[in-house]
Parts: sequence; C-alpha cells; structure tokens
Amino acid sequence: MTAVQPWSAAELAAWSNPRLAEVEAALSRWVGVQAPAGLGEAMRYSVLDGGKRLRPLLVLAASEAVQPLADAGARAGQTEAALRAACAVELIHAYSLVHDDLPCMDNDVLRRGKPTAHVQFGEAEALLAGDALQALAFELLVPDATNIPAAVQARLARLLAQAAGSQGMAGGQAIDLKSVGLRLDEAQLQQMHRLKTGALLQGSVQMGAACAGELPQAAVAALSDYGAALGLAFQVVDDILDVVADSQTLGKTVGKDAAADKPTYVSLLGLDGARARARALLDQALQALARSELPDTHALRALAHMVVDRDR
Amino acid sequence: MTAVQPWSAAELAAWSNPRLAEVEAALSRWVGVQAPAGLGEAMRYSVLDGGKRLRPLLVLAASEAVQPLADAGARAGQTEAALRAACAVELIHAYSLVHDDLPCMDNDVLRRGKPTAHVQFGEAEALLAGDALQALAFELLVPDATNIPAAVQARLARLLAQAAGSQGMAGGQAIDLKSVGLRLDEAQLQQMHRLKTGALLQGSVQMGAACAGELPQAAVAALSDYGAALGLAFQVVDDILDVVADSQTLGKTVGKDAAADKPTYVSLLGLDGARARARALLDQALQALARSELPDTHALRALAHMVVDRDR
Repeated sequence: MTAVQPWSAAELAAWSNPRLAEVEAALSRWVGVQAPAGLGEAMRYSVLDGGKRLRPLLVLAASEAVQPLADAGARAGQTEAALRAACAVELIHAYSLVHDDLPCMDNDVLRRGKPTAHVQFGEAEALLAGDALQALAFELLVPDATNIPAAVQARLARLLAQAAGSQGMAGGQAIDLKSVGLRLDEAQLQQMHRLKTGALLQGSVQMGAACAGELPQAAVAALSDYGAALGLAFQVVDDILDVVADSQTLGKTVGKDAAADKPTYVSLLGLDGARARARALLDQALQALARSELPDTHALRALAHMVVDRDR
Repeated sequence: MTAVQPWSAAELAAWSNPRLAEVEAALSRWVGVQAPAGLGEAMRYSVLDGGKRLRPLLVLAASEAVQPLADAGARAGQTEAALRAACAVELIHAYSLVHDDLPCMDNDVLRRGKPTAHVQFGEAEALLAGDALQALAFELLVPDATNIPAAVQARLARLLAQAAGSQGMAGGQAIDLKSVGLRLDEAQLQQMHRLKTGALLQGSVQMGAACAGELPQAAVAALSDYGAALGLAFQVVDDILDVVADSQTLGKTVGKDAAADKPTYVSLLGLDGARARARALLDQALQALARSELPDTHALRALAHMVVDRDR
C-alpha cells in the first residue's frame, strides 16, 4: 500500500462547503416550517445558522466512503438517505444543546454567540422546541414515498435512537449530572464521554455507512472504531478548549467546567497530557480508516484532523 | 346489518386485563433497565405502575380489529409489532407528562397519586428521563432481528414521529402555552386539542392498524376518523373531570385549568354543553367503526365508551 496524501485545508473546504450548503438548505426546508408559529421559530433559531455541522459532515463523508460498496437496492436512495441522516443527527445535537442550556441543567445564556433558546423564547418554549426537534429527527429518517429502502430507514432510526437515548447521549448526560464534584478516574471519565458526546459522533459515522445498505462487516466495524476514537478525541479537545480558548472565539461560556467543579481530561491528565491523548486518539482513528480498506477516505481523515486541530 | 351488541364492563375487563398485564410486563422489561442507575430509576418511576394505559389498549384493539385483513408479509410479526407500538405510545405519553409537570410548564407536584418526577428526582434528572423515554419509544419500534417487516417498522416510526412532534403533541402544547388568558373560539380550542392530546390517541389507532401491513384504504380512513373523534372526546371529558372530580379520584391536581385561566370546553360550552359534546363525539367514533366494515370492533367500541364514561 502506498501512503495516502492527506487533504490540505483548502481541499477539505472544497469538499465540505457545498455539502454544508446543502445541509443548511435542507434544514431550513425541514425544520419548524409547518409548526405553530412560536414553536417553529424556536426550533429554527436553535438549529439554523449555527454550529460547525461536524455530525452532518461525518454522516456524508461516511456515506461517500462506502458508496463503492453500496448494495444494489440501496443505491438509488443513498444520497437522499445521507442528507436526511445528516440533518437528523444535527437535530438531535441541537435539541440536546437547548435542553442542556436550561436553568435546571447548565443554566447557560450564550451559545454559538447568541442568547440561548430559553433566554430568547422562555423556558417552556425551549423545552418544547427541544422535544419537537427530537421527534423531527426521527421523522426525517422514515419518509413516505421515497427511494430509500425501508430496511435502511429502520436501521437509521435504530442507530439514532441508540445513540441519543439512555445508553447513549442522554445516559452520558445523566452520568455527567451525578459526577459534579466527584473525582472520577480515567475509565469513568471515558465512559461518561463515550456516551455523552461519543455516541452521537460514532452514530453519525455508523448512520452514514448504513445509508449504503448491507456492507461487509469488517468495513462497518472499522468505521465504527474510527467514530469511537474521533468521538473521544472531540471531547478531549473540548476540555482543552474550555481552558485555553476565550468566549468570543468559542461562541460559548468558557471555563465553566472548572467553575462547576466538573471532572475533565485537563484536570485528570494536565494540559500537555490531554494534548498527547488527543493526538493518540487521532492516530487510532486514522488507523481504523486504514483497516477499513475503503478506497477513498480522504474526507473522513480530514475531518478527524479537523476535530483535533480546531480552535473552537 | 344486524346491530352489534356492545360489551359489558366485565367483557371489556376480560379483554383488557391480560393485555394490560402484557404491556406492563413489556414496559418493565424494556424501560430503563440498561440505563445509568439514576436515569433508569427516573425513567421507570415515570412509566411503570401508573396510568390507565388507554393508548396501548387502543393500539392493541386496532391491531386485533384489522388482523383478518393483515397482509401475508406482516402476519408473523404483527403481535410483536403491536406490543412494541403499544409500549412506544405509552412512553411518548409518559415523557410528555414528565416534561409537562416541570416547574417551567405546569409546575405540578402530583401525578397518578405520586410526587411528580422532578419532585422525586430533581428537575435535571426529570428532563433527561423524558428525553430518554422519547428516544426509547422510537428504539422499540425498529428492532433488529425480528419478524416485523422493515416497511411496518418504518411506518410505525413515521406515525409516532408525526403524532409526537411539532404538528402533533408538542405543537399542541405550544399552542396551549400561548393560549393562557386568551379567549379562544371553539375552532381554535379544537385545533389545540386535536394536536395536544388528539394526535397521539389517533396515532395509537393508526399505529395499531399499521401493524398489519398494507390494508384497504377505506378501513384505514375509518379507523383514523374513529381515533380523531375519540381523541377529542377524551379532551372534552378531561375538561369536565377537571371541574367535577376531586384530586384523590383523579390522582392529579384538579381545578388547575380554571386556576391557570386556560380555555376549556367547560368554560366555552358550559358543563351540560360539554357533556352533550362528549356524547356526540362518541357517536361519531362509533359511526366511523361501523363504516370500517371490520368484522369485530367490540374492543374499539368498548374503549370509546370507556373514554366518555370514565370518572378519572
């Protein structure tokens, strides 16, 4: 095997920009449009024009990486399935932020450089907007009258439900709640983050792969390992940025983990140790891609680099 | 056509008791078991040993009513699909109560005769438990390795998402929020309730029918009409009970609509007018069943009577 030349930042941008535009347009078309006025506005405010859209890009990159292996039945609907899955994971992410920002949770007032949803619309409206966004995420995955095979639809819904629920994101948030002021060891911290942020990032990769229908098990497993390593790396970098970035760059309140006495990778490993851990996880992710034996994983590789090298 | 003899209370009980036991056992098997400890406990507290289980019974009754028409592919998985759908609608109902009881919404402390979830576990835990219950509802509908055809799974998830989301239950709750202190006319009140409570009740009937696969359109439409009339009747009776019942019988705070200055069918039509409306909606529901031309609608008929004649 010859070494694969990684993409430059410009090459990643050339790949991601048209895809980001497509996701943004789809979200704008699908979110809150036919909802009662106040609710629709809160849903759109919480989703549109904000965020890095990392999860949608992971869905699209994974779907494109497995496209050469797509089964015949799934091929006609694969592009639509990937766009729907990309939007669905973003809606789950967006709803989790809305609920996480509520006064009974993190009580945050700033998100993506804007007032949080409950500051803008009130707590009750924000709560409902989050609930409606979760329902919409699933609705997007199971459209009527489509080329997406029902088996692909059902699998996408299954992966999303597992990633979002009590053994995924919501479970990780519950562990997080209970861990304030505790001294977690690294295994406990990792378990919390594997659920809280890792499950949805890994789920994004798995859902992207599922858009192509039945695939060789080895490729699916390798992509899943990639997603797990990337998901953990994301959280390690988040912990680093919470210490070193400023609020303006980050678009949200910084230093809040330390202020809330929450365990982080920085408090556990120190800043240098956390940085080394992020590099090691990046290597794991890239090795998993190599194991997948997929012909073109440029975008997935570039996204992993982006996760670790980002400054916000 | 000869007139169909309606079931006695004993006949309804003989039908519903074993089904309620089965739903209860399934919920106990599926809810919160593998969740992190605190979260799982809050999920189970919010779901188990409580409630009339009207929505699950509607799912099961509708599924049994259409069983003679079930398509060949759906037959082997129909019973499992109906049990999963029955539990899924109950989880959506349960999560909506947990969130609805939160201080930022109705701020209720009593539910089904017990402290509400946030009183028992704290607001953050209750919020997360509700979120996790919604995800679990969808997860139950799309199991791996099952006899339920993927097309049935996808349709069940679609119906549930539509019933729960911004054009269903969550949308109705948002309209409700905005209507406090307003004088709604009957059309506006009806629209609010069609979404807030009607959508999930109607969705329960539609999901029960969907368990049998592809069905004649006329039967599906008639069942859907039945569900719509029953859903509205349920809310009219709820409004009546809020005025005439006492907290102990009802197991929740009474008189809260008037106290909150919320528009109700009683405030709009008076007590006698509301009672007459409930009877008229019962008639509509029964007429829709007659139109369905299904051979056995005893259980659906009896449930409609139960909704209108209940005292809690």
